[in-house]
Amino acid sequence: MKTFNVGDYLLHRLQQSGIRHLFGVPGDYNLQFLDSVIAHPEITWVGCANELNAAYAADGYGRCNGAAALLTTFGVGELSAINGIAGSYAEYVPVIHIVGAPASQAQQQGDCVHHSLGDGDFGHFLRMAQEVSVASAVLTAENAVAEIDRVIAEALEQHRPGYLLLAVDVAASDVVMPNAINVASDQQQQVAAAFADAAERLLAPAQRVALLADFLASRWQLQPQLETLRQLRAIPAATLLMGKGVLNEQQPGYVGTYAAEGSSDHVRQAIEDTDVTLCVGVRFTDTLTAGFTQNLPAERVIDLQPFQAKVAGEVFAPLTMAQALAALMPIYQRHCAHWRLAEGMQCEENEQIDAALISQNAFWQAMQRFLLPGDIILADQGTAAFGAAALRLPVDAQLLVQPLWGSIGYTLPATFGAQTAQPDRRVILIIGDGSAQLTIQELGSMQRDGQQPIIFLLNNDGYTVERAIHGAEQRYNDIAQWNWTALPHAMSVQCAAQSWRVSETAQLEAVMAQLMLNRRLSLVEVVMDKQDLPPLLRKVTAALHQRNSR
Amino acid sequence: MKTFNVGDYLLHRLQQSGIRHLFGVPGDYNLQFLDSVIAHPEITWVGCANELNAAYAADGYGRCNGAAALLTTFGVGELSAINGIAGSYAEYVPVIHIVGAPASQAQQQGDCVHHSLGDGDFGHFLRMAQEVSVASAVLTAENAVAEIDRVIAEALEQHRPGYLLLAVDVAASDVVMPNAINVASDQQQQVAAAFADAAERLLAPAQRVALLADFLASRWQLQPQLETLRQLRAIPAATLLMGKGVLNEQQPGYVGTYAAEGSSDHVRQAIEDTDVTLCVGVRFTDTLTAGFTQNLPAERVIDLQPFQAKVAGEVFAPLTMAQALAALMPIYQRHCAHWRLAEGMQCEENEQIDAALISQNAFWQAMQRFLLPGDIILADQGTAAFGAAALRLPVDAQLLVQPLWGSIGYTLPATFGAQTAQPDRRVILIIGDGSAQLTIQELGSMQRDGQQPIIFLLNNDGYTVERAIHGAEQRYNDIAQWNWTALPHAMSVQCAAQSWRVSETAQLEAVMAQLMLNRRLSLVEVVMDKQDLPPLLRKVTAALHQRNSR
Repeated sequence: MKTFNVGDYLLHRLQQSGIRHLFGVPGDYNLQFLDSVIAHPEITWVGCANELNAAYAADGYGRCNGAAALLTTFGVGELSAINGIAGSYAEYVPVIHIVGAPASQAQQQGDCVHHSLGDGDFGHFLRMAQEVSVASAVLTAENAVAEIDRVIAEALEQHRPGYLLLAVDVAASDVVMPNAINVASDQQQQVAAAFADAAERLLAPAQRVALLADFLASRWQLQPQLETLRQLRAIPAATLLMGKGVLNEQQPGYVGTYAAEGSSDHVRQAIEDTDVTLCVGVRFTDTLTAGFTQNLPAERVIDLQPFQAKVAGEVFAPLTMAQALAALMPIYQRHCAHWRLAEGMQCEENEQIDAALISQNAFWQAMQRFLLPGDIILADQGTAAFGAAALRLPVDAQLLVQPLWGSIGYTLPATFGAQTAQPDRRVILIIGDGSAQLTIQELGSMQRDGQQPIIFLLNNDGYTVERAIHGAEQRYNDIAQWNWTALPHAMSVQCAAQSWRVSETAQLEAVMAQLMLNRRLSLVEVVMDKQDLPPLLRKVTAALHQRNSR
Repeated sequence: MKTFNVGDYLLHRLQQSGIRHLFGVPGDYNLQFLDSVIAHPEITWVGCANELNAAYAADGYGRCNGAAALLTTFGVGELSAINGIAGSYAEYVPVIHIVGAPASQAQQQGDCVHHSLGDGDFGHFLRMAQEVSVASAVLTAENAVAEIDRVIAEALEQHRPGYLLLAVDVAASDVVMPNAINVASDQQQQVAAAFADAAERLLAPAQRVALLADFLASRWQLQPQLETLRQLRAIPAATLLMGKGVLNEQQPGYVGTYAAEGSSDHVRQAIEDTDVTLCVGVRFTDTLTAGFTQNLPAERVIDLQPFQAKVAGEVFAPLTMAQALAALMPIYQRHCAHWRLAEGMQCEENEQIDAALISQNAFWQAMQRFLLPGDIILADQGTAAFGAAALRLPVDAQLLVQPLWGSIGYTLPATFGAQTAQPDRRVILIIGDGSAQLTIQELGSMQRDGQQPIIFLLNNDGYTVERAIHGAEQRYNDIAQWNWTALPHAMSVQCAAQSWRVSETAQLEAVMAQLMLNRRLSLVEVVMDKQDLPPLLRKVTAALHQRNSR
């Protein structure tokens, strides 16, 4: 049996979990471990400008790669990152957060060392991390193998962050190599059979059946199963914004993005006006349902969740989403011939495009034409995400949004992470000016690493999403005005980026035509009216304003 | 009695506490409260580019103003800021952190609203905040007056952050105005007398008495008392780096910055080679003592802390630092004539300045000549802070450093905060390139608000302080290379800033001469060798490397 040190062992386990990059920021409590990272043949260090950005980048990477890892230093580093980790927790992305800590002896003695609160208590940040992690461990030389395995396995199974505190001396300790990670075996056949019976009783007499899929189906990688099911019968199918991309939107039956009262009428009717609605990995969030206005009574819903299912309110557990979907397949085959087909997808009704200035409608119509199969699109929470909800995604396109956690600025570093995970795919970022200011630094990291994403920077002069909710003309929704097109150059000495500022629709279309021809990091500043909103956002913000005023 | 709503009442209490600015970032759970802020005649809203920067700015403001306030939104906002709040906690800065929260009803129902973790538990972030706050409250219409008073009073008394969770509906509720804040009355005369007796027994026979003051004396604003004491007799006096500025360094007796084994020999002897060393508000941190190498046995130390004092190890409590200092005054007057005077301050021994490229020595000698009375100087943790330790501060100059928490990037937003608190004073920021990348956005906020700080950006090609500790040539200590002089323009459309890039000492001095003549926001990129270190940092990092390798 080969011996490793704890740091090497941890890297080995990350690699076995499919992680090929480690994001983070160096600090003096993680430098020795970083030597192991640099020496590792399969794992690449990706330094970021700050820890929050690194956490966002890791999250974006995890959404494109299945899992991700983040390295920060004790106290200052981990706390700067913790909002990003909380987002991964809320939205089910397995990020292994490794925190380099002071030497065990200093911790035991309660020394007043830097990056501590100076009170001798080294448990503050662990307790904070536990609020946003499914598993955590303070590693020692003795427990490292078992605890690393446990935390990684738990994070992968639950699709949520795990936290590992790695003191400098522990990282350098020797360990003995055990066997591969054991993921808990499945013994859920009886539950699956009972679930299938109940589901068949509901589905057999049904005529109007619809499918609503959401982000948890995407996190558990059920896209292929959903596509197979939909090949049997083109029943009406929709996603929520958060899960957009989990259904092939070019496949017959796709009706659009469901947003409860925020939906187009035809989408709402297709999903709600049914005998049975099959929900796969769905979570209803305020911003995605115009304030919880969904009308889907439990008695006509089959609801598949990661570790349980419900049929007309009856719970079946433990039962994974994949098992439940497999159990539905023969029922589908027996009965789906009777189910109503979806009507053809109707286009959203758009106003006539103003030939001159770029309206939200004009922008999103141009964007629809710009998209290609296989694109990865990131849309920041704000006008961008709500506008993207109305796109019809090309085949194999992936959309990254963060509507539950909703941390503005998230997508810029997440673009860096997504492009790191998928260097050969075209990555498109759509982000507002207010949001981009939070995390602009990774424009430098993208260029350092030779990445070539395309960034549409919607300059609508401040926090338009907030204006829509409250304070349309209030000063607090203004921001410092930047020269956006100068930033790629300012953040890279070897800048090969190109940038444009467009305010007319014809200019935007001309730039998009150029972007089809060459691949360089590109920033397109799109000047828009500060009160203009995508239609969905208009409906949603009216509902939010009402809730906040109650 | 006049009625206010809870938001108005909170603002009224902040104003009574001497707070005239509220830093933060808007979010849809704090927008209504922001209307009250905008309407308030005495409190100005200061929007920042992101929440961590806002927390740093509030901390810098608090150090210059006595107290500060920060407004963020639930979850995403408060967690982005929490590293800054932790720094204020570690280093004793009273920042009132107000967090706008979802409506009470949504919280009670456990709704899956945005900016929550989606699990119906609205207590996660409160529990996290409690780890880095001296007081916290979930405000309701009923408890708001009492809880706002309690949290603010506690934060001001302890000089540490307080946390107020303010749901949107609570902010808008009416309250009835009670009386002014009652700060606990002092009944500590007996303790003070016992302390004075013990102190006099130690001081009466002493001949070699020295004074060591640190940051807690600065936080409790004891500069005038210390100056008065020192006027009685010019005994040797020093500060630690963290408290630099608390002593008038132009007053006779000042010997320099004490850093235990990292000190110059004459400083070390002056402070350690004594019969009695009077420590006022001192905390020994690893980075400031070359790894806890101070030699100050308890039996010859009088140690004043915020709420207690020790004489030769015996504890006297409750006793505030100010009370203890007042009790020492007559003892000083009776005995200080016998105490040894300080020898004249010796200059640090510097190498001959290289006429061509800018060495660390050359830079700090030039900086010493550049300083003026009343300057506020901020030096980021890294080469900047350790270099600043050797400066002799002009009268009324103030130095802001963060060596215990040590969160790099802190000082750039803190500069914005300090200049907001003191718009008429010259503010000088000295920061490395690696650090500045973490928080660069506030360069835009400074320009939006017409501020004119002077920024020396030490471009030594990455994390030099980390190179000094470990991995001198490792890739993880490299960063993306930016065009620093282009950034002020890129981050402001109305840019009136000036910037230079200098690599020779003569150039640096020429630019400094220009800076004496005009006041505009100025960025001076100072190109330095990536392995060059201030002497103190060389000693300290050697000690840290040894501790981390244990």
